[in-house]
Amino acid sequence: MGARHQLLPLAALLLLLLLLAAAAGASGGVTSGYRRKAEATADMPLDADVFRVPPGYNAPQQVHITLGDQTGAAMTVSWVTASEPGSDTVAYGRSPGKMDLSARGTHARYDYYNYTSGFIHHCTLANLKHGVKYWYAMGFGHTVRTFWFTTPPKPGPDVPFKFGLIGDLGQTFDSNSTLSHYEANGGSAVLFVGDLSYADSYPLHDNNRWDTWARFVERSVAYQPWLWTAGNHELDYAPEIGETTPFKPFTRRYPTPFRASGSTEPLWYSVKIASAHVVVLSSYSAYGQYTPQWAWLDEELRLRVDRRATPWLVVLIHSPWYNSNGYHYMEGESMRVQFERWLVDARVDLVLAGHVHSYERSRRVSNVVYDIVNGKATPVRDLDAPMYVNIGDGGNIEGIADNFTRPQPRYSAFREASFGHATLEIKNRTHAYYEWHRNHDGAKVVADSVWLTNRYWMPTQDDSN
Amino acid sequence: MGARHQLLPLAALLLLLLLLAAAAGASGGVTSGYRRKAEATADMPLDADVFRVPPGYNAPQQVHITLGDQTGAAMTVSWVTASEPGSDTVAYGRSPGKMDLSARGTHARYDYYNYTSGFIHHCTLANLKHGVKYWYAMGFGHTVRTFWFTTPPKPGPDVPFKFGLIGDLGQTFDSNSTLSHYEANGGSAVLFVGDLSYADSYPLHDNNRWDTWARFVERSVAYQPWLWTAGNHELDYAPEIGETTPFKPFTRRYPTPFRASGSTEPLWYSVKIASAHVVVLSSYSAYGQYTPQWAWLDEELRLRVDRRATPWLVVLIHSPWYNSNGYHYMEGESMRVQFERWLVDARVDLVLAGHVHSYERSRRVSNVVYDIVNGKATPVRDLDAPMYVNIGDGGNIEGIADNFTRPQPRYSAFREASFGHATLEIKNRTHAYYEWHRNHDGAKVVADSVWLTNRYWMPTQDDSN
Repeated sequence: MGARHQLLPLAALLLLLLLLAAAAGASGGVTSGYRRKAEATADMPLDADVFRVPPGYNAPQQVHITLGDQTGAAMTVSWVTASEPGSDTVAYGRSPGKMDLSARGTHARYDYYNYTSGFIHHCTLANLKHGVKYWYAMGFGHTVRTFWFTTPPKPGPDVPFKFGLIGDLGQTFDSNSTLSHYEANGGSAVLFVGDLSYADSYPLHDNNRWDTWARFVERSVAYQPWLWTAGNHELDYAPEIGETTPFKPFTRRYPTPFRASGSTEPLWYSVKIASAHVVVLSSYSAYGQYTPQWAWLDEELRLRVDRRATPWLVVLIHSPWYNSNGYHYMEGESMRVQFERWLVDARVDLVLAGHVHSYERSRRVSNVVYDIVNGKATPVRDLDAPMYVNIGDGGNIEGIADNFTRPQPRYSAFREASFGHATLEIKNRTHAYYEWHRNHDGAKVVADSVWLTNRYWMPTQDDSN
Repeated sequence: MGARHQLLPLAALLLLLLLLAAAAGASGGVTSGYRRKAEATADMPLDADVFRVPPGYNAPQQVHITLGDQTGAAMTVSWVTASEPGSDTVAYGRSPGKMDLSARGTHARYDYYNYTSGFIHHCTLANLKHGVKYWYAMGFGHTVRTFWFTTPPKPGPDVPFKFGLIGDLGQTFDSNSTLSHYEANGGSAVLFVGDLSYADSYPLHDNNRWDTWARFVERSVAYQPWLWTAGNHELDYAPEIGETTPFKPFTRRYPTPFRASGSTEPLWYSVKIASAHVVVLSSYSAYGQYTPQWAWLDEELRLRVDRRATPWLVVLIHSPWYNSNGYHYMEGESMRVQFERWLVDARVDLVLAGHVHSYERSRRVSNVVYDIVNGKATPVRDLDAPMYVNIGDGGNIEGIADNFTRPQPRYSAFREASFGHATLEIKNRTHAYYEWHRNHDGAKVVADSVWLTNRYWMPTQDDSN
């Protein structure tokens, strides 16, 4: 009892210190005290259950879907067969017993140094109804497998929808936790900010790891569309082994509906899902003035975004523009310099990035008044500006990025060196709920959340603290 | 006489004003008072003599040469035949009567919307001796035409050489003046900083203007190598007419020795001529971290530049990093942000750019200490930094860029809104003489000149005033 009484003043002091720390955080941003174990995580072994090839001769594997047009009235189904090409046909319908529609796709293989891919099939199911559950099957002639998806609701200004936000996933035990936690959270589509398989971390960019990754994520990606952003691990540029076509495995395996949004390359495009207009950009393609990506984004933001129809404007890139981690610090700077002004002028709500293997959320800031001679190059609070979220924390083999700059810059609202994923729940034209889920170690914990107010419909509301 | 006496005080006052202006110029840079007529210049008509198709059935036309390897021990000869493919062979030798060597090239055509090119031939003459005059001929079977070139001297630390520096040439009457003035100045190779034909200024990017341009410049380019940089007018990106492959006409017509310098794309490469190591970059390709151009430049500057062997390090880009003209102001900013630090660390002597249709030369400045939170983004005097020269003043159809920012920024040493060209005469490892030639109107006038001191051998000498 006596010892307990002696502890009381100490507890009061600790409480005071915590309050002071919280007050400092409110003005200067929060660096979470949660520390993940620092060692790099291990890839799951090749014989892990999640990598298992489905049974049956020439069974379709690595099944995944993405939007086949700009709104989800079409869906592109992709899969791989290993022994022979097999059928390019997908049968589909509104019940498992009545898949009376069918579409025919194409297939191709590709070579990468000493690797030859399986037969990669892509088949677009068109003229779907919005917000409807479809069953689909492929593998006719040999082993047939059946899956299902629900098309996104028809775009409109007040259509609720829940996105999963995942980046830098890889195929470690942590990757598996992230995916499981996302599945438990129940989003209906994933905005994936790049770095899928990390096959290039293996000798000769072992493309078998592209196959294992696609088998690992099939349990989600076959059932709901994931929207793909190109990361640096998608480049697979390896002149030392004669592989000089950037993005070869990625673009052969993961289609995007780029033509539907007026783009001429699969690496930048847009989709409209529910109340969101989602713009996907490529950090690793040309973005200088007059280049194709620059020209496309210019027209996209000026002519094709309609905030009355789809109020939420979200941009996906891989390399973040606002990052306060020593890892990859300022790597996105050259793209920021090129495009930030446009995003502020367009009142983008949210910019999602990956690349840095930790979590960070910014305040609404911009850094766009610099004109070389005025020296004004400091990020400042700007309610017209996007909130920036870095979620490169999927759990890949490279481990956590636990090297935040100190002091925490004013543009940084919350940061934590953990793995996890986020969700974005659009409620209506004015409000959306954003939540980041730390997934260590084993438990899923909501560690950061914020109500977003729409920059078009509620432009003066400061929602980024 | 009395009137003359009265004028003396006025003359003294004028002299004083001039001296004050000169003093101000010495500290703050010179904006030349010379004003070119502002109206855009006209393209030479299609029936102009300079565009004439050479006589004779299927006569080789549009003959041009560039380095076929990194040092000029090989030379690539290109030409076009219009009626039929004809021979791919180039005969060559050390006298016009003894062209006893031969090489065989290839040919191809390309389509661009409603245009189909002639048969474009490329043939590389290898194993040449340095510093030797060769005659060469092509067109066997039909009309044979003969030309000559002198290979560059073997690279070494003290090998004098005179480069011509030309950009944004086009095919106007002013373009013709620029070319004539350069010819009179007698350089031995041209560093061309992009924007060749301006064919894309014509409806449907009329590729016939690529043909006329090549006939126009043949009188120089068939006789000495020009090194090509890609400009925005080489993009020919026109999705509205289904042309979505950037640089299609340019890369089909103008080869570069990119493989010889370890590059995997023709748009960035390097050559070593006499005492110069010349690095060519592309403003309109990807330059973000990890991209092919980024990876190549990283290795190039770290591993392949040897200032003891080739002391002068010169970089060519199209879109300038230091420009104080309202036209294209800050367009090169995103590439500067990506690469400037590397160029300063490598102690590059000179960066040549085009794009802005006027002339400007910078002091030695850098702007590389910015780290977002320090706010230090002002260009400062830096003797490790390159001198930047913008020579987008070849005389193209778009007219002069007479819109300098005021006051003249401190980084700008001299600027003038005129057409012209420059020359760079390397004398030895320590000294080179640079001269800019205004070519208006009719007369050629040296309007700016500076002795450059080498950044590797005389790094502390301030030569940029």
